Amino acid sequence: MKLAVIGLGLIGGSMALDLRKSKFATKIIGVDASEANATQALRLGLVDEIDTLEGAVSRTDMVIIAIPVNFIPETLSKVLDVVSDQTTVIDVGSAKKQIADSVENHPKRRNYVAAHPMSGTENSGPEAALEGLFEGKITIICDQEKSGPLHLAFAEKMFQSLGMNIAYMTSDEQDHSTAFISHLPHAAAFALANAVLAKENREIIFDLASGGFQSTVRLAKSSPEMWGPIFQQNKGYVLESLDVYIKHLKAFRKSIENDDPQEMYELMRNANRIRGVLEGQNGSLVKNEKTIIKLYTK
Amino acid sequence: MKLAVIGLGLIGGSMALDLRKSKFATKIIGVDASEANATQALRLGLVDEIDTLEGAVSRTDMVIIAIPVNFIPETLSKVLDVVSDQTTVIDVGSAKKQIADSVENHPKRRNYVAAHPMSGTENSGPEAALEGLFEGKITIICDQEKSGPLHLAFAEKMFQSLGMNIAYMTSDEQDHSTAFISHLPHAAAFALANAVLAKENREIIFDLASGGFQSTVRLAKSSPEMWGPIFQQNKGYVLESLDVYIKHLKAFRKSIENDDPQEMYELMRNANRIRGVLEGQNGSLVKNEKTIIKLYTK
Repeated sequence: MKLAVIGLGLIGGSMALDLRKSKFATKIIGVDASEANATQALRLGLVDEIDTLEGAVSRTDMVIIAIPVNFIPETLSKVLDVVSDQTTVIDVGSAKKQIADSVENHPKRRNYVAAHPMSGTENSGPEAALEGLFEGKITIICDQEKSGPLHLAFAEKMFQSLGMNIAYMTSDEQDHSTAFISHLPHAAAFALANAVLAKENREIIFDLASGGFQSTVRLAKSSPEMWGPIFQQNKGYVLESLDVYIKHLKAFRKSIENDDPQEMYELMRNANRIRGVLEGQNGSLVKNEKTIIKLYTK
Repeated sequence: MKLAVIGLGLIGGSMALDLRKSKFATKIIGVDASEANATQALRLGLVDEIDTLEGAVSRTDMVIIAIPVNFIPETLSKVLDVVSDQTTVIDVGSAKKQIADSVENHPKRRNYVAAHPMSGTENSGPEAALEGLFEGKITIICDQEKSGPLHLAFAEKMFQSLGMNIAYMTSDEQDHSTAFISHLPHAAAFALANAVLAKENREIIFDLASGGFQSTVRLAKSSPEMWGPIFQQNKGYVLESLDVYIKHLKAFRKSIENDDPQEMYELMRNANRIRGVLEGQNGSLVKNEKTIIKLYTK
């Protein structure tokens, strides 16, 4: 089957790599607004050829849109205008409600599946593409009832061939959950990097930086071009998550300021529960939720 | 040479493992307030025998104190009271000024070397001990002029045999730097875990938790018994670092609230500089600072 990937960065490039490897796609046509990225993706073998958006999407069975979320509404609408009834269109942006709303009344709305495959790294561009990036991770499919059953099944099969589990929710629920477990940690890392970079004796501080610092601040290396539009599109829930976070930071600060070890210990012990919760990851959802399909390729 | 290790957790246990492996220590005597920990450490082969504090330190060439920082002043003083002139005493707490001040006028102050080996994991206890934990990392030696030259050299040789680089600074400077690059990231992770745990639809959120969340929140698994006293002892600088962090979080929040992508991008681009700074790690210090000895064992 023929696949078009619009946006040949970390996510689009990694999907292309694994969809070729699993033989889900036999031909992959790439589209990228940056000629340098397109050339690089071709050179790295992520795609078989490069074409214009119109040229690519008019002759493929599936279109994956993997560009910064601010460009998705216009591109998605343009793609839906051009594709045949038989072509499934998927976007993989991290914020979903604004995008889904933008094509709510498009005549080809049922060709479209709104998805958020939850995986990534702090790197970007075609050379950041990685095999196996999605294996064992979860993809969220939003507002499934608005997609036609054939298109939904085809999208599920594509994520299955990446080795992903699938969770279903509304685009509003996805934006709320994702604000807390993805957008907030990115904002926290950006601010932590800025706080530490603001110190004067920087050379000494960074030579001292240990593994703990590096893992906490890793996401601060992420691309502003990708993340700025996500924070903007998911503004309401991102602000809510930041407010909750700042409230908890201030509570912890207060327990230190007040020399209140009892309160400090309680806050830390509560935070420690994250260990059990994370180590139980996946198991609970797959077992307890009827809406989850656990699908693996092989 | 004979070594006593007081506190057989992650740090003390890992030091024992590597100091035996490098043949720096030929006999290791363990001391732990918890009988369970002591038994476990013996069973794991971290130490050759267990003894009381007085019994252990009166017959060793070096004493390493690796217990929570709130217990160090009293233990350190007790150890210095007992040891011979030929025994070097080192504590490895993460906050140093209060501890160093507590023995400022002890008759055996020159036997003591205040150190902070900057490495660890989010785990604790004897079973968390790891070989190679310190290899290639930095240890800070504080107020070196207050240690006798023989004791300083012996301590340096011990850290050398762990494969560590050594940085020298006052205990006040170490507490200030360490607040930003170690204590603050821990406080940030505890608060992030609490913020996310506070959400109601927890099961869904955690099943969605991706690698980015897990690395940012990893330190929230750390031991309250170890970290509470660190926050308390380094209260002044920890509060300063939290204030700077909260200020930067609020600035980022404001750029989102005000729909000010220019400002948001600038804050993220500034944070991105952490990549270059971290990737240049070690190089700059070792090259530029006369006070750094880069020492490797072999």
